[in-house]
Amino acid sequence: MSSSSLPLTRQSVQSAHKAIKPYIHLTPVLTSTSINDIASTPELPLNLFFKCENFQKVGAFKARGAFHALSRSSREELSKGVVTHSSGNHAQALAYAARTHGIPAHIIMPSISTPSKIAATKSYGANVVFSGSTAEERWKVASEVIEQTGARFIPPYDHPDIILGQGTLALELEEQVKELMGEGTLDAVVTPLGGGGMLAGVATALYGTGIRVFGAEPSFQGGDDGKRGLEQGQRITSVSTLTIADGLRTPLGEINWSIISDKSKVTGVFSVGEEEIKKAMKILLERLKVFVEPSACVPFAVVLFDEGFRNECKRLGIKRLGIVLSGGNTTVETIAKLFGES
Amino acid sequence: MSSSSLPLTRQSVQSAHKAIKPYIHLTPVLTSTSINDIASTPELPLNLFFKCENFQKVGAFKARGAFHALSRSSREELSKGVVTHSSGNHAQALAYAARTHGIPAHIIMPSISTPSKIAATKSYGANVVFSGSTAEERWKVASEVIEQTGARFIPPYDHPDIILGQGTLALELEEQVKELMGEGTLDAVVTPLGGGGMLAGVATALYGTGIRVFGAEPSFQGGDDGKRGLEQGQRITSVSTLTIADGLRTPLGEINWSIISDKSKVTGVFSVGEEEIKKAMKILLERLKVFVEPSACVPFAVVLFDEGFRNECKRLGIKRLGIVLSGGNTTVETIAKLFGES
Repeated sequence: MSSSSLPLTRQSVQSAHKAIKPYIHLTPVLTSTSINDIASTPELPLNLFFKCENFQKVGAFKARGAFHALSRSSREELSKGVVTHSSGNHAQALAYAARTHGIPAHIIMPSISTPSKIAATKSYGANVVFSGSTAEERWKVASEVIEQTGARFIPPYDHPDIILGQGTLALELEEQVKELMGEGTLDAVVTPLGGGGMLAGVATALYGTGIRVFGAEPSFQGGDDGKRGLEQGQRITSVSTLTIADGLRTPLGEINWSIISDKSKVTGVFSVGEEEIKKAMKILLERLKVFVEPSACVPFAVVLFDEGFRNECKRLGIKRLGIVLSGGNTTVETIAKLFGES
Repeated sequence: MSSSSLPLTRQSVQSAHKAIKPYIHLTPVLTSTSINDIASTPELPLNLFFKCENFQKVGAFKARGAFHALSRSSREELSKGVVTHSSGNHAQALAYAARTHGIPAHIIMPSISTPSKIAATKSYGANVVFSGSTAEERWKVASEVIEQTGARFIPPYDHPDIILGQGTLALELEEQVKELMGEGTLDAVVTPLGGGGMLAGVATALYGTGIRVFGAEPSFQGGDDGKRGLEQGQRITSVSTLTIADGLRTPLGEINWSIISDKSKVTGVFSVGEEEIKKAMKILLERLKVFVEPSACVPFAVVLFDEGFRNECKRLGIKRLGIVLSGGNTTVETIAKLFGES
């Protein structure tokens, strides 16, 4: 990564946006009157704006952070390639960004990763290196690769370059809603919360605009580490959940925590159960007609089902609500497992 | 319907577009480099443009025809409501268009229709009337409803007003591709072919532009009635297939046949099997990230798998190819059935 980082401000997010714009999609914002009807009550009339990062390059917002991280390093620094550990969307995003810039990417993946994810990462031209599944085993292999190749390590979420890159989606969403509505903009945005790079980035991008920012987590098997950490006033550093929202199984990173635990930046974090995520996913697939992965459905599930969140919206007068659909990297077989009869 | 119809010309499609524009979505055109790679060979480099009518009002292109049919009748003529028989997207489209115009809609549906389709039609405020499943039983009930209510019959596909309405999507696609490419436009468009309203409409809209038009059908259990009719030089008037492309189980209408069998308007019709439709559907869902129904996947399946079609493209120098994704009205349970392990 870059030796000197940009400060974590809205202005830095704007610079990040300028840097990555040539490489990423300006993803569409979708609205649906039938979904607004489903989400609204007479006391809480909601107008929802879905930022479709499932249509982003590599099918997820992670392309933003990866391209930004690369843009912050010199040609020289990147000449020996990049390395990361990830079995998910960050792996594919970094592989794709590296290929775009004509440099090698080494991706450390647990050997038990699903074959489709390994294949997808390889399809972007990455050198996949297998490791065990624990953090120690992963790090051991990563260190070896760095030593052998001289490649630069690009972390998946807990780094200013990544945070600022992910935050760029909020700038677009803000502008797109302004255009759609003619006047005014959003009252609030809800994003998924896993490692926290996107939530921290969106909060940084929107700080000072008056647009509130919320995080959404799966509650299954303690996946709501962000919410629990906020309640305890201390970051929870390890999580072990097999929630269907597999992109959100990670504990919050340190830098991300420092932003997310700042009440003036993130108003609150809410969580939902597995059945609620599935219900939200069914509606997004069948009504919004977009193909999204379970993790992407968590914010909409919070909007529909979390009474605490809905009461906050009433109390704060939130009506125009942005919802980040973070990615679409799932398979028809996964959908069959989630919604099949068996 | 209107007593006097517009002539079946590109100009009439342009008038139809003007009439329905306030009521329909300008649906996006999506492209994907990874899908272009899948579809291309060195001898046949293809650039695909997906017209996403799954994002249309009621989730299918049928909204266009329904709104156009209503726009061609006077307030007076519509005062007693409208009636049609359909268990599919036309039912929902007409119900929605009627509600928008504040008039009643009576929809005749076979009592064996799937509950989700009945519920969807009712959700648009329609009066659903059940009938048996044969054409005779349907017509009997429809006649009774017309007699009792004085409602106007709006046929699902074989009428000039419907044909011109569906054709409007081609005008948009042509313009959108021009904008995307900066110069030039499409070489050809492929649409699904069931009753033929959309294919006839697209062919009418693009006649004289130099853009070629093709139809795509399921071959299962004789669902390729259009192709077989063209080979025989005679319209096939009855079809009985249970293809997964359930929107394309209908035989071609008479007016539609007269347009589709005109070689100067439709260059050819091609067909694909069930497994090919499923493969195309998997790619559209997982790679393009759009939620589409099986019928919508038939043109892309033809592009990928039909050697006859691909040879035509080589012979005619077709590179920029528009593909109509006709609708997205399916369910996660259907996907589970299609792609589950059982």
